[in-house]
Amino acid sequence: MANSKYEYVRHFETVDKVLPNTWLVVRIDGRGFHRFSQTHEFQKPNDRRALELMNQCAIEVMKDIKDIILAYGQSDEFSFVLPKSCNLYSRRASKIASTVASLFAANYVMHWGKYFGDHKLQYAPCFDSRVVCYPSDQNLRDYLSWRQADCHINNLYNTTFWAIVHSGKTEIESEEILRGTFSKDKHEILFTNHNINYNKLEDIYKKGSTIIRKKTLVTSISPNTGKPVERTKLVPCALYDDIIGQEFWDTYPELLKER
Amino acid sequence: MANSKYEYVRHFETVDKVLPNTWLVVRIDGRGFHRFSQTHEFQKPNDRRALELMNQCAIEVMKDIKDIILAYGQSDEFSFVLPKSCNLYSRRASKIASTVASLFAANYVMHWGKYFGDHKLQYAPCFDSRVVCYPSDQNLRDYLSWRQADCHINNLYNTTFWAIVHSGKTEIESEEILRGTFSKDKHEILFTNHNINYNKLEDIYKKGSTIIRKKTLVTSISPNTGKPVERTKLVPCALYDDIIGQEFWDTYPELLKER
Amino acid sequence: MANSKYEYVRHFETVDKVLPNTWLVVRIDGRGFHRFSQTHEFQKPNDRRALELMNQCAIEVMKDIKDIILAYGQSDEFSFVLPKSCNLYSRRASKIASTVASLFAANYVMHWGKYFGDHKLQYAPCFDSRVVCYPSDQNLRDYLSWRQADCHINNLYNTTFWAIVHSGKTEIESEEILRGTFSKDKHEILFTNHNINYNKLEDIYKKGSTIIRKKTLVTSISPNTGKPVERTKLVPCALYDDIIGQEFWDTYPELLKER
Amino acid sequence: MANSKYEYVRHFETVDKVLPNTWLVVRIDGRGFHRFSQTHEFQKPNDRRALELMNQCAIEVMKDIKDIILAYGQSDEFSFVLPKSCNLYSRRASKIASTVASLFAANYVMHWGKYFGDHKLQYAPCFDSRVVCYPSDQNLRDYLSWRQADCHINNLYNTTFWAIVHSGKTEIESEEILRGTFSKDKHEILFTNHNINYNKLEDIYKKGSTIIRKKTLVTSISPNTGKPVERTKLVPCALYDDIIGQEFWDTYPELLKER
Repeated sequence: MANSKYEYVRHFETVDKVLPNTWLVVRIDGRGFHRFSQTHEFQKPNDRRALELMNQCAIEVMKDIKDIILAYGQSDEFSFVLPKSCNLYSRRASKIASTVASLFAANYVMHWGKYFGDHKLQYAPCFDSRVVCYPSDQNLRDYLSWRQADCHINNLYNTTFWAIVHSGKTEIESEEILRGTFSKDKHEILFTNHNINYNKLEDIYKKGSTIIRKKTLVTSISPNTGKPVERTKLVPCALYDDIIGQEFWDTYPELLKER
Repeated sequence: MANSKYEYVRHFETVDKVLPNTWLVVRIDGRGFHRFSQTHEFQKPNDRRALELMNQCAIEVMKDIKDIILAYGQSDEFSFVLPKSCNLYSRRASKIASTVASLFAANYVMHWGKYFGDHKLQYAPCFDSRVVCYPSDQNLRDYLSWRQADCHINNLYNTTFWAIVHSGKTEIESEEILRGTFSKDKHEILFTNHNINYNKLEDIYKKGSTIIRKKTLVTSISPNTGKPVERTKLVPCALYDDIIGQEFWDTYPELLKER
Repeated sequence: MANSKYEYVRHFETVDKVLPNTWLVVRIDGRGFHRFSQTHEFQKPNDRRALELMNQCAIEVMKDIKDIILAYGQSDEFSFVLPKSCNLYSRRASKIASTVASLFAANYVMHWGKYFGDHKLQYAPCFDSRVVCYPSDQNLRDYLSWRQADCHINNLYNTTFWAIVHSGKTEIESEEILRGTFSKDKHEILFTNHNINYNKLEDIYKKGSTIIRKKTLVTSISPNTGKPVERTKLVPCALYDDIIGQEFWDTYPELLKER
Repeated sequence: MANSKYEYVRHFETVDKVLPNTWLVVRIDGRGFHRFSQTHEFQKPNDRRALELMNQCAIEVMKDIKDIILAYGQSDEFSFVLPKSCNLYSRRASKIASTVASLFAANYVMHWGKYFGDHKLQYAPCFDSRVVCYPSDQNLRDYLSWRQADCHINNLYNTTFWAIVHSGKTEIESEEILRGTFSKDKHEILFTNHNINYNKLEDIYKKGSTIIRKKTLVTSISPNTGKPVERTKLVPCALYDDIIGQEFWDTYPELLKER
């Protein structure tokens, strides 16, 4: 039962290294999350527990994969950013994409109870993923802006849609009311009919979540002295900032720095 | 905050459809499972619980993804076979690979307790994955033979290695004893020194696990009559057969049939 | 001026090996041949000289690249078939495609005079090319049938179109007359109005050209004896056969044989 | 003979668009030019006619494909640079690569006589080609520096090698003399033994040829007045400059400008 006569099958594997010196974005997307959110009775328009679980998973992925410098998430998706110089798995696309998706999904199950308590997980969640290259800093920022603008558009729609539904209309009626409306119309409907000032909603809903590594003071017990020792460490933290404008990038200039 | 000015970034995504009319194999591999098996005190050379958990995960993946016709697993890897005519996700490689890896990993966490009881899962397992195309039936069979021959070679080595270690030698001494030995030498060491007839070991260790869909009689309660109803259904079942020889393929001729 | 500090740029080159054990088709297409055929006053609907020059170029390519087993051409395109076992340039797609296109184009210029005499070549012809994999014999035959059916459809249209134009109508009028007509309508127009029995046209126009290697008796002068010696040799020859039906493949069974 | 039942074969064609917003380099390489140069008795170490023919071909390619902003050639290779914003053939790699290779080869035959006179072209030249993406300006410059440093290294070796051979040694002896020598040793051998000051050789040999589009005053006859009219036009011109240092890029700043 020697192995050698079968080894030729290895030559059918393709090399899928992505272009060097480009930003890599790994985007994972929940598969069938419409049904998943119904089965698990997610609150509408946003389920705080589900969003915080997503953020925790992203943080766990970043703790494991040190190359990731930033992650941006909204709804059932998360994008992980790897720097141009990154050589993780020799930049093999399928290896990077599948590792991130599988880590994320496993953590989703592990941390479910922390956010959903006795509300039992009915079946395994699933996330697909892909790797995309962005050559310039501007391309990367435009990618992230695209996702955050998408978050805003969807959240304004969903907030208005569910406000109408919660006021007693059917989902079909709500859809009809919103057909053809512009952004300012939805703000107006929310304010006038439902007494909601959209701008005062929490940023986690309006802006999505951005995870970056921040210098954090951590206290640990010295194994030598048995006494507490303080030191700074880079720890992934969730922010709910605007990442489209310039201010965020001026505040964290190291993000786009060559490394 | 219109989305349109950023949408150009979509053009950086590549189309990674795999060639039509070829067998697809999705192989997942445990990432860092050496450490994972140590942290979780897997028994050596084989941990029955870990293997059965792997099989359960593969079965769950097959219950979800109906296109998969066969899965073969050993150690911390599993290969899933999709037929030539399969059009899952329009045959997009990264989507297929990441979906399978993420489903597998999430199920691994979900079903851990069933096999490991109070033995707590310390951290999230991770599996990478890739898609490979095989044009001919022979190529596919040779791929599966390659994995099963690999299982045999590794298992014979590991069984002998750990028998020596369990008899009181260090791991380094055991390695030295085995250096340069042939298959028959290992059989001999096992039999003479450790009273183990390798051929009598359970097939799950020697052959790995092959999951196929078998017609199974299932009983359910009719929603109309409230009485039990029997019907046959295709249910993924684990076998521990030789899949290198012709007999297996003669027994299940539908596996290689055009569909 | 050492080279080593720049050599990293090699890592930006991608590996583009095509899947083993699949038929390879290299299809070249004339670029801008509408203008090229006008500049060089090609006869319409078909220019015999141009077709024979195309065939000669294909034959020259086959003399050079021994792996090619068959070529099929019509109009300004040619498809070259390489067997499943072919390992030309380690199956690198861009290397194979560009080599064939460049050989074809260079031969087009070299042999122009033989077919066009004093009719001077005004500017360099250009052919683009691509490599496509076909896993099964049926896929390959369907590909070739696709090209030959395309030849038939175009040639019937063009023959009718130019018959109408040559009878005194403008090109726009001819186009209008043919709009919405079926195959049998065109046959009828040709026969009734222009006294042309389409079925009696030469096969090179109706079927395109298929080049295969045929055993041919060749005579050469022996360098030892100075006398003529006869031997058989495989020489690329143009046929104008139907390659959609079974008969062609029964006549040349070695074409689809494993090698 | 409807076409539709065969059209499914189109789905086997792969989409090979290269990443947007990256520099594209198309490099063509002479195939089998060692034999080609022997058959056509190229002078050693450099054949001026052959180099000028290569340059003319590159100029003709640039006249045809307006997207190319610069070409660099040496020996039997030429690299064509397309800007980041280039959308030629929707950036399809095989289409771009094969078009350039085929245009180059056809022009090589067309212009052969102009440089080689009665010295007849014996058989069709052939060039393979590939497309490589370079994300940053620095990557592009490093690529070009790599080729020019390669030109220098090869030319110094070849110049010394052939000087030794022309002085009466065999090629094998010459190879042995040069084994292990450094750059300065070769300069010394040339100067002392063969009375050649390498630095005084013509730049076309030492630096290779760089073709850029230069504003050139062209005179044409006005179709209205019948009188000569002068206007400036961008015309591809060969330079033999150092393109590794900064000076060249400062002299032609528009080359690296965004467009």
